[in-house]
Amino acid sequence: MTSSLYTCRDSIGGGKVTDTTATRRQLIADAAITTLARAGMRGLTHRAVDQTAGLPEGSCSYYFRTRQALLQATLERLIEVDSADLPPGTALVEGGVAEVARAAAGVVRYWTSAAAGERMVARYELMLEASRRPELHEVLGRAREHYHRMAEVTLTAAGTSDPAGQAQLFIACLDGLVFRHLTGADPIGDGVAELMLDLLTGMRRRRE
Amino acid sequence: MTSSLYTCRDSIGGGKVTDTTATRRQLIADAAITTLARAGMRGLTHRAVDQTAGLPEGSCSYYFRTRQALLQATLERLIEVDSADLPPGTALVEGGVAEVARAAAGVVRYWTSAAAGERMVARYELMLEASRRPELHEVLGRAREHYHRMAEVTLTAAGTSDPAGQAQLFIACLDGLVFRHLTGADPIGDGVAELMLDLLTGMRRRRE
Repeated sequence: MTSSLYTCRDSIGGGKVTDTTATRRQLIADAAITTLARAGMRGLTHRAVDQTAGLPEGSCSYYFRTRQALLQATLERLIEVDSADLPPGTALVEGGVAEVARAAAGVVRYWTSAAAGERMVARYELMLEASRRPELHEVLGRAREHYHRMAEVTLTAAGTSDPAGQAQLFIACLDGLVFRHLTGADPIGDGVAELMLDLLTGMRRRRE
Repeated sequence: MTSSLYTCRDSIGGGKVTDTTATRRQLIADAAITTLARAGMRGLTHRAVDQTAGLPEGSCSYYFRTRQALLQATLERLIEVDSADLPPGTALVEGGVAEVARAAAGVVRYWTSAAAGERMVARYELMLEASRRPELHEVLGRAREHYHRMAEVTLTAAGTSDPAGQAQLFIACLDGLVFRHLTGADPIGDGVAELMLDLLTGMRRRRE
């Protein structure tokens, strides 16, 4: 199994992947991520996913009979790829708080890049859909645990006062910046590292 | 004109509003906000909006012929209501940084409440749609100016070092927390005021 969505996507056209049920399901989920990012929840249909994947009509509905099954599989795949695809610089959680801030800014820039931005938009689409489909909450819960663990490691490296309790704010800040950038509401300029340093410095304060 | 979406919505059924083109367009946009929050972008159709508004079929498409016109009007109305409906405690931007933090936490809690949460979900839906419809960017640009002004006033009251430059991070944090709460990805617990105080304290640091 590959850890990169984009490698998977290339392989859709390349025909080099062994056509087992597992890989076929994965290819379809990857195509659903792309379709969702480009056409939104309204454009996500079984037929559109077949077209994006370059598969015969009916393939997507063969593997995922209902819309709920397709959404569930897409969200699971998204989180799998997200978890495996650590953005460059994520490992840099040693050194001082300024270095951690620079690494966090790198994550924000990566998530807004051409390489990862599409996947992020698909994630936000699925999260919004979850506000109406509690069935998706269990998968989101697993994702929360993953992101909280990563955030805690980062905040511990930055020497903040309560890494577990502060993880929620840290994640929300990154997500908010990326969301607002990708939607065109508030493009990110230079100085993200300074903003991250503001945030992390505040989290180092001694609480009563 | 009333400053509350919920008052407007009540008036849809009450039949007390003078039926001019302007009020009819406003009622339809309010119904579109509700429809969008409850059924997502996929459920937002001219017919569904007619049903939500309790208007004869064809009303929505009479006033907003295209989907683009409906989306544009809905986003404009949303921002109009958002700008007028200051959450309780927003005016509290005097006093020390701890008081500003408590006020900011109040805003977060209000935006996740039954009173405002639906409107927020509709806003996130429209923002995501804007990632595919650059025509919506102009309206989002006006909203950004509004929120940045509010954030700057708040950050100035909190004594931060660069209110204009830090407004983006402040808004992203609030939006990220509210988005993740409303989607069920990361419910907000107690301690939001402490997190806001972390953020604002960090923004008070002297930058080089």
